Amino acid sequence: MKKIINQPGDVVTQMVKGLASAHADILAQVPDTQVLYRTVETPNIVGIVSGGGSGHEPSHAGFVGKGMLSAAVSGEVFTSPTPDQIFEGIKAADNGAGVFLVIKNYTGDVMNFEIAQEFAEAEGIETAAIIVDDDIAMEDSTYTAGRRGIAGTVFMHKIIGYYADQGKSLTELADIAVKVNNNLKSIGLALSAATVPEVGKPGFDIADDEFEYGIGIHGEPGYRREKIKPASEMAAELIARLNEEFAWAEGDHYAVLVNGMGGTPLMELYLFWNDIHEQLTAAGLQIDFVKVGNLMTSLDMEGASLTLLKVPSEDAEWITALQAPVNTAAWG
Amino acid sequence: MKKIINQPGDVVTQMVKGLASAHADILAQVPDTQVLYRTVETPNIVGIVSGGGSGHEPSHAGFVGKGMLSAAVSGEVFTSPTPDQIFEGIKAADNGAGVFLVIKNYTGDVMNFEIAQEFAEAEGIETAAIIVDDDIAMEDSTYTAGRRGIAGTVFMHKIIGYYADQGKSLTELADIAVKVNNNLKSIGLALSAATVPEVGKPGFDIADDEFEYGIGIHGEPGYRREKIKPASEMAAELIARLNEEFAWAEGDHYAVLVNGMGGTPLMELYLFWNDIHEQLTAAGLQIDFVKVGNLMTSLDMEGASLTLLKVPSEDAEWITALQAPVNTAAWG
Repeated sequence: MKKIINQPGDVVTQMVKGLASAHADILAQVPDTQVLYRTVETPNIVGIVSGGGSGHEPSHAGFVGKGMLSAAVSGEVFTSPTPDQIFEGIKAADNGAGVFLVIKNYTGDVMNFEIAQEFAEAEGIETAAIIVDDDIAMEDSTYTAGRRGIAGTVFMHKIIGYYADQGKSLTELADIAVKVNNNLKSIGLALSAATVPEVGKPGFDIADDEFEYGIGIHGEPGYRREKIKPASEMAAELIARLNEEFAWAEGDHYAVLVNGMGGTPLMELYLFWNDIHEQLTAAGLQIDFVKVGNLMTSLDMEGASLTLLKVPSEDAEWITALQAPVNTAAWG
Repeated sequence: MKKIINQPGDVVTQMVKGLASAHADILAQVPDTQVLYRTVETPNIVGIVSGGGSGHEPSHAGFVGKGMLSAAVSGEVFTSPTPDQIFEGIKAADNGAGVFLVIKNYTGDVMNFEIAQEFAEAEGIETAAIIVDDDIAMEDSTYTAGRRGIAGTVFMHKIIGYYADQGKSLTELADIAVKVNNNLKSIGLALSAATVPEVGKPGFDIADDEFEYGIGIHGEPGYRREKIKPASEMAAELIARLNEEFAWAEGDHYAVLVNGMGGTPLMELYLFWNDIHEQLTAAGLQIDFVKVGNLMTSLDMEGASLTLLKVPSEDAEWITALQAPVNTAAWG
């Protein structure tokens, strides 16, 4: 294993310190925790908390700041944060209007966030939550009952963060989040496996000329392995799978996220987006918003995922929400 | 070679199309070229043009927009753009106040940008240029006479872009750029080699337990290979080399860029920054600005570079310039 790290057991602690000092203008660390919370402009609005295992950077701390998250909780690498840590995040995010939690659908995350909600309620902090399960590749995966939560979660952060800034209540945010989640679908592929520092070797073996469709952001198995093929054919497969969910019609409106897994450079992501764009446009879809970048990663894994958010005509404001300027480390 | 691409010869063309459609709100492609130019708010100020070989994304197109570049010219992978293409960039950037060129010090880039300047002058467009040579690792490298231009170039874009937006003249920008360049030093390290799509294999061999100090952003050789060691020791070496140049005193002011080479995830970059921060602070330096991210990459190479910009007290406005909000794809 070659990485720019010190002791493998210290990577999260040292990364969180680095995040805190690099972005001291917008966030701070709750002392003795792995919680980073928004310090820039904290009006009396609903706080938004997300988090999960580390290794998905810039998720989730990179989205803490004005217009997105109020706090992010980092567990150990690919490991759910503990209820205590999540509770610290909730307290840091609370400005008196309650706290909304964005949880990716993994069994450990769901359990620990729910326990933290109980702690919060016991202290009089009202909470609500959405469980994001955007990954259409698999049902019931290694760490998950149902579908996994992956890169689409970043769109959830952005849209819910916008509406929180607009002063929506906890109940209103919960209703919006359910509707966003129902319209949010993702699917990924991987060319290589991530290496968890404390493990020291790649999480799975894959041949030098193969890639796998449907792999999760913790290296959970996907649905098919193939010889490496052109990006346009990879795009066609992901789009076909997504259309099995959406069954779109010409003129339907969508927002798109082309997300890199951490080890794939931007050159490939923009090229992949170019293929996706051509194919979605040929299908007659209206793309109202697009984001390309390494936003929900899996350490050094090579690969990408495609997220589509269907934007119903009565919810055109979601595009405004995605476009609204923010002050965070990682949402440009 | 496993990459998300189509034909290796088409990667730049397809990436440029992808950049143009993904960021259609701020830039556009000059038809039939690999030039992307700013379309958002183009007042009568000096235009700023940069570019070079592709493979360094988000450099340079990711910095086109309000407050940074007016146009970016992408050559083939690791290959200087032609004078014709650069000239198209100059024309696209010209708003009547002349055009300033930011050139990284590689023999091909310098030659082709200078020929393009002659084309521009012949058409009555006034130009000036800075040649950035911030890499202290080596003199006279594979593609370079003197020192190479690497990640520090992004700070040059930001500072010069700010002053152009402030209405500075071509001559004033040239004077600022010389002073910035004199105070701008970088040095990198690599854990693996980049694979150029048309070559199909890594540009050099390196053992599974080794890394190399001083490697360039096109895989040019560095100055020493060692067994992999803790990030804190890597940081100490880079900092010691930089201090051979700066010979800093306690209380000196600096801006810092921790740049990833493309294949290194943010977790490692923030952890590396944490070590750098501790060591620079222990040396008594004042860090007035820091940026961490994959900004001047080398395709999928794993590694990082450290850039320090010394900020003389009479130039404290450089920090304002670095902090000023912009509207670009890649400067957050």
